[in-house]
Amino acid sequence: MNRTVFQMTKEELANEHRALLAEYEQVKSESLALDMSRGKPCKDQLDLSDSMLTVLKTGEDCLDTAGTDMRNYGMPVGVPATRKLFAELCGVKPEQVFVGGNSSLQLMFDTIARAELFGVSDGSTPWCKCEKVKFLCPAPGYDRHFRICETFGIEMINIEMREDGPDMDTVEKLVAEDDSIKGIWCVPKHSNPTGAVYSDEVVRRFAALKPAAKDFRIFWDNAYMVHDLYENAPELLNIFELTEGTENEDLVYMFTSTSKISHAGSGVSVFIASKRDMERAVKYIGTQIISYDKINQLRHAAFFKDANAVREHMKKHAEILRPRFEAVIEAFEQELAGRDMATWTNPTGGYFISLDITCGSAQRVYDLCLDAGVKLTEAGATYPYGKDPKDANLRIAPSYPSVDDLSVAMELFCLCAELAAVERLLAQ
Amino acid sequence: MNRTVFQMTKEELANEHRALLAEYEQVKSESLALDMSRGKPCKDQLDLSDSMLTVLKTGEDCLDTAGTDMRNYGMPVGVPATRKLFAELCGVKPEQVFVGGNSSLQLMFDTIARAELFGVSDGSTPWCKCEKVKFLCPAPGYDRHFRICETFGIEMINIEMREDGPDMDTVEKLVAEDDSIKGIWCVPKHSNPTGAVYSDEVVRRFAALKPAAKDFRIFWDNAYMVHDLYENAPELLNIFELTEGTENEDLVYMFTSTSKISHAGSGVSVFIASKRDMERAVKYIGTQIISYDKINQLRHAAFFKDANAVREHMKKHAEILRPRFEAVIEAFEQELAGRDMATWTNPTGGYFISLDITCGSAQRVYDLCLDAGVKLTEAGATYPYGKDPKDANLRIAPSYPSVDDLSVAMELFCLCAELAAVERLLAQ
Repeated sequence: MNRTVFQMTKEELANEHRALLAEYEQVKSESLALDMSRGKPCKDQLDLSDSMLTVLKTGEDCLDTAGTDMRNYGMPVGVPATRKLFAELCGVKPEQVFVGGNSSLQLMFDTIARAELFGVSDGSTPWCKCEKVKFLCPAPGYDRHFRICETFGIEMINIEMREDGPDMDTVEKLVAEDDSIKGIWCVPKHSNPTGAVYSDEVVRRFAALKPAAKDFRIFWDNAYMVHDLYENAPELLNIFELTEGTENEDLVYMFTSTSKISHAGSGVSVFIASKRDMERAVKYIGTQIISYDKINQLRHAAFFKDANAVREHMKKHAEILRPRFEAVIEAFEQELAGRDMATWTNPTGGYFISLDITCGSAQRVYDLCLDAGVKLTEAGATYPYGKDPKDANLRIAPSYPSVDDLSVAMELFCLCAELAAVERLLAQ
Repeated sequence: MNRTVFQMTKEELANEHRALLAEYEQVKSESLALDMSRGKPCKDQLDLSDSMLTVLKTGEDCLDTAGTDMRNYGMPVGVPATRKLFAELCGVKPEQVFVGGNSSLQLMFDTIARAELFGVSDGSTPWCKCEKVKFLCPAPGYDRHFRICETFGIEMINIEMREDGPDMDTVEKLVAEDDSIKGIWCVPKHSNPTGAVYSDEVVRRFAALKPAAKDFRIFWDNAYMVHDLYENAPELLNIFELTEGTENEDLVYMFTSTSKISHAGSGVSVFIASKRDMERAVKYIGTQIISYDKINQLRHAAFFKDANAVREHMKKHAEILRPRFEAVIEAFEQELAGRDMATWTNPTGGYFISLDITCGSAQRVYDLCLDAGVKLTEAGATYPYGKDPKDANLRIAPSYPSVDDLSVAMELFCLCAELAAVERLLAQ
């Protein structure tokens, strides 16, 4: 087929529609049951860290290098060896590293809860006492970030997400003129869902931001910092190196975790901030919890030992993930390329592929796939309030299914994308 | 000595003072270094649960009975087997049980944070929008409860703590007449620090409370629910059995944890509430976290298997703790009994002994002990705002030191109590 559906006559479209529908009904009758809705690691990935389960075997193993018993209470900021490991990985000082539980989402939610209740810094107004609090939301982005904002009643402003990061002209302009803008969500490396890696220029512009609000913070969710699919994946500038010693020293809250390094449900999470911001956070966290699970923190330090071991470990993840990503991209190339029906990203890491299809048809494609047994991330989820203004973006999460299942699912997906496009043309 | 210091002449007192001071200086020169400030389990106690470290050895072991992989994301309310275990232990339905991370303190802090930010029930005013929020605080009580209130700016009202629980006449009266009173802290069994177990009548009166505030909740911190020192320790009525099906069904938030059952730093915590309260909590918790560490939850279920095994395990803790409690009580009996200088509790479980000494001397005794190398819980800590109105209460935490160390420490303590009493008399 050399002509795209957009060049067909009504009659050709009607024929095409019948053919596609028949094909769709055929696939539907096969009763698929595939869940591609979330970025869940697959079993093979989880297996990579199973020896962590028994890396600490005895009470003796639970002593840290100073002889302190990690089984007991204490150490609110986390196990020293684990702080050191993450400091090395993230290029910051151990004192800047707070080690939490199994969820960086929780650390993000709690950081916003603290800002709402107690303010961001000494003397600043708690956000819950502000008439209006707004966040900039590069989109497509991560639905769970947006859900936190929605839960707190924080107004979200869409920022266009580009190949090199968010539209910085707009970001700079908005934060400079509106002091009710208190934050921005960033997934700076292998962005969720586009896979974009912020360019050096974008990171530099973030580090030099001049927000009107003194209690503005960048929520730098570096979830995929070591999650490269290929050896030559682009590197991300260290934003803390850029802000250190400048008037923007307290500008960045960074978060990361081992959820996609060790076990998704039982990793460790990390919060990194300036010395001043950390002291303030720990003041409140110290009222909330005596310490997060130090045994699990020590397990991670004992299993990984150093940053290099983490990077080596991530190569094994990449080996498992690469064929999955490539199966998706291959399906798109084969079924959708050159047909004006879709554009997609080709990430060098992370967990997702972002796809823009014919405007006004993302929800329809989601529904068609769901009816045929393939669950995608909900249409709209990648935008604030679950509302994709163009109803065009879909997020593909290739990590969990097998390569074979992925091929089947992507065949269905492409069929549905074409079917939805034809439906729209017929309705015009 | 048959006469108490209170019956001595000034001259006798001065002699006594010199003698005590010489004795004190002697002990001080021995350079003790003992920390009895917190209720930390000792090494022998921690060792009891070491085989939990390796109870899950392989990925296969991490599947729950339904075959779901606990290593992965999901299951916001916790591992079914662990919910079941706690439901059995606490006499509630598994649906009422939320399993958290390693800290029930965190679940309590977060419960108050949610009340502050989002209100307690649909349509109720977030506490942060209320002009005044007050909590009733039975005292002496748990300093970390009081610190949460202080952090949130919640006004604390002292309630006298008696042998059978809080002064319920005052509790009933205050909650009925003041709708800014939104909660009360309770440690109903082996209360921190007195060891009191709430009587059946007190629990019934709590279950039948008629608070003016519809968003009033009882914070039932059942931290020591299975922490008996003796086989015949008094039982606590199940408050949920009393409230179920009544208009007070949504009155109680219960918390507990395995911090003093398995490993203090890496146990699992539990939040129990009515069906309605649980649904509302989970709505917000679901934005905060995908799930707490399910591997550790499963570890606990696999290690303990059922409620009975937990109770058997607690007998081993009791064997370790009993001689420690008895060493303290013995020292008090020997050194302080019949001398009008102190009264103390004789707990049947829990982690503390509460002691009331000569009014106005608790801080002095704390300081004297600290100077001689024995760190107690800070004077005043057992009262809201760290202010003991009589400066008389001290909390003894006998779990961590060895029995020998405890005997030395208690000898010093009694000496300091006497010295402080004599100092006060001399100053009169």
